[in-house]
Amino acid sequence: MRRKDREITDIKEIEAILEKGKVCHLGLSNDDQPYVVPMNYGYRDGYFYLHSALVGLKADMARKNPKVCFQIDTDVEIFSDPEACEWGCRYKSVIGTGLLEFPEDPEQKAKALNIIMEHYSGKTFQFPPQALAKVLLWKVKVDTLTGKKCE
Amino acid sequence: MRRKDREITDIKEIEAILEKGKVCHLGLSNDDQPYVVPMNYGYRDGYFYLHSALVGLKADMARKNPKVCFQIDTDVEIFSDPEACEWGCRYKSVIGTGLLEFPEDPEQKAKALNIIMEHYSGKTFQFPPQALAKVLLWKVKVDTLTGKKCE
Repeated sequence: MRRKDREITDIKEIEAILEKGKVCHLGLSNDDQPYVVPMNYGYRDGYFYLHSALVGLKADMARKNPKVCFQIDTDVEIFSDPEACEWGCRYKSVIGTGLLEFPEDPEQKAKALNIIMEHYSGKTFQFPPQALAKVLLWKVKVDTLTGKKCE
Repeated sequence: MRRKDREITDIKEIEAILEKGKVCHLGLSNDDQPYVVPMNYGYRDGYFYLHSALVGLKADMARKNPKVCFQIDTDVEIFSDPEACEWGCRYKSVIGTGLLEFPEDPEQKAKALNIIMEHYSGKTFQFPPQALAKVLLWKVKVDTLTGKKCE
């Protein structure tokens, strides 16, 4: 990171951004053509969890290349000034990379889906087996995780 | 797009999302390792405009591979239900791909920076030559542009 003055080094502060964020902007790449897709997510203990339908463009891309990037931002606010170069944007942002896998064990899938549900609802749920079978669970082992803010 | 029922086909509706959006989540890739970075942007007539410092991680990556993806979302709202599988997320999202170049002509840079400034402020500004020289202007010719919504 070039702007070291904006780096968030406290892991608690990074985790607070992940807790507050609503959308994970997931980066995929096939043949060096990047693709960014917004997804709901949950994070716990060094793993991101996302989900999708079993088939589709992003699932196809992810199966071809498990290297992903995730980006989450919160508290985005433009601030203005009479001078163009003094305009700016307040934000908090987390960027990380990791390797993706697709666990198929129903028990593991239900546990991971509840990490996503807890993120948004604070609650856990029961998942009927036929519903679980229709869900592709994305599990990302986090390799790098950096936070940045402008306040 | 798998969910054709969610596709936005009206270019005016896609452009309205680009007009309302505040953050472009730009996808880059080097050696098939994707990277996603939030950036401010402007859009006009089939081109995206972004800017950064002359040096830094994202500028280095972008110079190595000009293939990019941009993603913008607005109106993100989680909706709840007693059943886990009926939870969902309302959103409007635009995803596109394009090829990046870095124009260096000061007049072209000032014009493009004003497209970014107009997006946020509705106004245009004067840029001192020494300020222009310090800015890396990113110009993306849009190849694909798709819109999706869940309401």
